[in-house]
Amino acid sequence: MLIRQSEAVEARAIQIDGAKGVSLRVLVGSADGAPTFAMRHFTVASGGHTPRHSHNYEHEVFILQGSGRLEQDGKGQALKPGDALFVPPNATHQFINTGSEPLKFLCLVPTSFDCGTPTPGS
Amino acid sequence: MLIRQSEAVEARAIQIDGAKGVSLRVLVGSADGAPTFAMRHFTVASGGHTPRHSHNYEHEVFILQGSGRLEQDGKGQALKPGDALFVPPNATHQFINTGSEPLKFLCLVPTSFDCGTPTPGS
Repeated sequence: MLIRQSEAVEARAIQIDGAKGVSLRVLVGSADGAPTFAMRHFTVASGGHTPRHSHNYEHEVFILQGSGRLEQDGKGQALKPGDALFVPPNATHQFINTGSEPLKFLCLVPTSFDCGTPTPGS
Repeated sequence: MLIRQSEAVEARAIQIDGAKGVSLRVLVGSADGAPTFAMRHFTVASGGHTPRHSHNYEHEVFILQGSGRLEQDGKGQALKPGDALFVPPNATHQFINTGSEPLKFLCLVPTSFDCGTPTPGS
């Protein structure tokens, strides 16, 4: 049975258009034999944000630390530790760090979508 | 897009054999339209534990607060905040609070198993 301290997992910088100051740790994923969904840990530096995008699979998110805003369709909603979020498939979304400390959250995805395509970062 | 503060979600006591001092909050589940997996928040009181059991679906767990032990096949492993766990299908497991404060963790499950059976508590 796998037990892994999240801060000990190597963080990978996200180098895609629209991302600023974002790093990702895969805590439990396909490489560990996860059959259905993957648990990823994101850190967004102060002043940073994830890309504004949508995709054909859902996110389930849990805010661990820091403060931020979820942007969707021109509206922003404040985020704080302990908030749980469901981002349905095809909903446009962006996570923005609005504070002075890192924004840290879990973001889980299915390991595949569209009848078997591996989910990026899973 | 659903944003829900976890502590504001109603907690339900777990009344099954082998559980002591355990309550459950479904943060994101089938009732919210989650298509693949469900995010649940568990609180185990000091002196409490989850049932020692196994089932035909996986858990992905993230320890939020407190201290505990994962029991498996006569072996115990210490748990602390920030630990991520993968409990594969059919592995026997039990979570025990070994501290004086509540043990809090996220435990995610697929929303169904065995080709469509709804997962309990999802």
